Amino acid sequence: MTVDWIAVDWGTSNVRAWGVDAAGRVLFTRSANEGMGRLTKDEYPRVLDALLSPDVSANIAPLDVLICGMAGAKQGWLEAPYLDVPADLRQLASHSVVPPTSSLTSVRILPGLCQRQTGAEDVMRGEETQLLGLAALMPGFSGPVCMPGTHCKWVELNAHRVERFVTAMTGELFDVLSRHTVLRHSLGNERDGADHAEGLDAGLAAGIAEPQKLTALLFKVRSGSLLSGWKPSWCAGFLSGLLIGADIGGQREWIGKAEIPIVGDPGLSQLYARGLRMVGALGRIVDVNQVVLMGLRRAREAQ
Amino acid sequence: MTVDWIAVDWGTSNVRAWGVDAAGRVLFTRSANEGMGRLTKDEYPRVLDALLSPDVSANIAPLDVLICGMAGAKQGWLEAPYLDVPADLRQLASHSVVPPTSSLTSVRILPGLCQRQTGAEDVMRGEETQLLGLAALMPGFSGPVCMPGTHCKWVELNAHRVERFVTAMTGELFDVLSRHTVLRHSLGNERDGADHAEGLDAGLAAGIAEPQKLTALLFKVRSGSLLSGWKPSWCAGFLSGLLIGADIGGQREWIGKAEIPIVGDPGLSQLYARGLRMVGALGRIVDVNQVVLMGLRRAREAQ
Repeated sequence: MTVDWIAVDWGTSNVRAWGVDAAGRVLFTRSANEGMGRLTKDEYPRVLDALLSPDVSANIAPLDVLICGMAGAKQGWLEAPYLDVPADLRQLASHSVVPPTSSLTSVRILPGLCQRQTGAEDVMRGEETQLLGLAALMPGFSGPVCMPGTHCKWVELNAHRVERFVTAMTGELFDVLSRHTVLRHSLGNERDGADHAEGLDAGLAAGIAEPQKLTALLFKVRSGSLLSGWKPSWCAGFLSGLLIGADIGGQREWIGKAEIPIVGDPGLSQLYARGLRMVGALGRIVDVNQVVLMGLRRAREAQ
Repeated sequence: MTVDWIAVDWGTSNVRAWGVDAAGRVLFTRSANEGMGRLTKDEYPRVLDALLSPDVSANIAPLDVLICGMAGAKQGWLEAPYLDVPADLRQLASHSVVPPTSSLTSVRILPGLCQRQTGAEDVMRGEETQLLGLAALMPGFSGPVCMPGTHCKWVELNAHRVERFVTAMTGELFDVLSRHTVLRHSLGNERDGADHAEGLDAGLAAGIAEPQKLTALLFKVRSGSLLSGWKPSWCAGFLSGLLIGADIGGQREWIGKAEIPIVGDPGLSQLYARGLRMVGALGRIVDVNQVVLMGLRRAREAQ
């Protein structure tokens, strides 16, 4: 079994690599927390070689590596300029860039997507490759895709074409609200109890019903714990639910009754599926590693 | 000129005291940053005496001091239990509490208000006294009052009666978003330029138009600076505008065409007035120190 090429998802916080053989089988998976956020441009070749060294020895020819994600950002390894939406995802490979590497590897980095229309400015890096994989796993799918994470993307996908997308700061909002605001006094760390699930459902319902009141609903976490004795785990669930509910409630115009693929952080995906059920939509959770690997495969084949 | 009594507004971050003579004239004003947030219960008498010592010498009888604000919180000097809304503000004085003091002063602390209805839980401490003062300055006023700050209160006031209120975390959201999220890379500190005012107006318009999309609109600060070259000062204005606009947009059902008193942080009050104009309402900025002092006077007279 010989490694034919390496698929890499290089994000802000982490990097993950798959060794793939000529038949498309994954021979090994490696990951590290050396994401774009902590690397300078000239550290990438060393990090990549170190990541692969336990599994890959020096070949006669340099090993093919295809990378998606933040390694292609301006502050990453080498900038891979955005493709503009509407965008055909089969064009990603032909817009890849080639950074300087060691003699062990031959690397290309895929671009992200951007939307330049005034008032709808938006960017993504990494999700476009997941979407290319999703288009392969769900051939002919047309409709909205929900991509939860630190920044949640809502994407209108039409087969291989991204028509438009929008980014919501849902995950990052939860993080800063729970760590840096007055709400922190009301929250607990426990996430698995019945209290948490109850709070989550109450928050989802409130956020979906009145997304336009989010700045006020958030304070209910504090006042509810002061006046109604809400438990910390209930409050943590409620805050999650409020933010996800407001996100779903704010995107109602393109959420119908049809199945909506959910591609992203596995824990968050469950919460979004629960919220989508509340508005009568059926979320279908898709494994994010499976789609990113499939997307990198398809991009490689399209070269 | 002899000090007759001391009016005190004791907030989370600061304490401010006015020495008032028998004719109601202010003889001196003192303030310090020794707010509730940094004091233990038994430190209050010392802090109060130190604050007053330059202006007040030992009297034969202890000096009357009337306090509103966070000194009456559970974690303050002595808890002054909330009055429930709907509440007649002329009842504040009769619900004051008397904490232990030094021999120099005789102190009472006014209560805050709370709203216990499920789903509308809310609390205030300090604003109720401002509202009592506002009711005196605008006799017979009935309608919504906008009280900008770290937490912005929207209050339905009917003469001396608070019918209901809601707290939005607008100010605190700006603070954590600009300091602890990815948006910080796009923001500058400059607040006074033409760019800032332009960004503010664009943000107000966007937040007012689509308050239900706030989680997504926030990310425009980042993507707009990446794609459209928005300047840091423009982005800072835009973020302020988005949050204030979403706050106003979410409270549209009780914002009519009538004059709306704005009582709170002076800088924020200007921004809210600008936003209210965009929805056809006329904000009337009222000096917050004037109303809190008037409120403490009226509470003292009602004893």
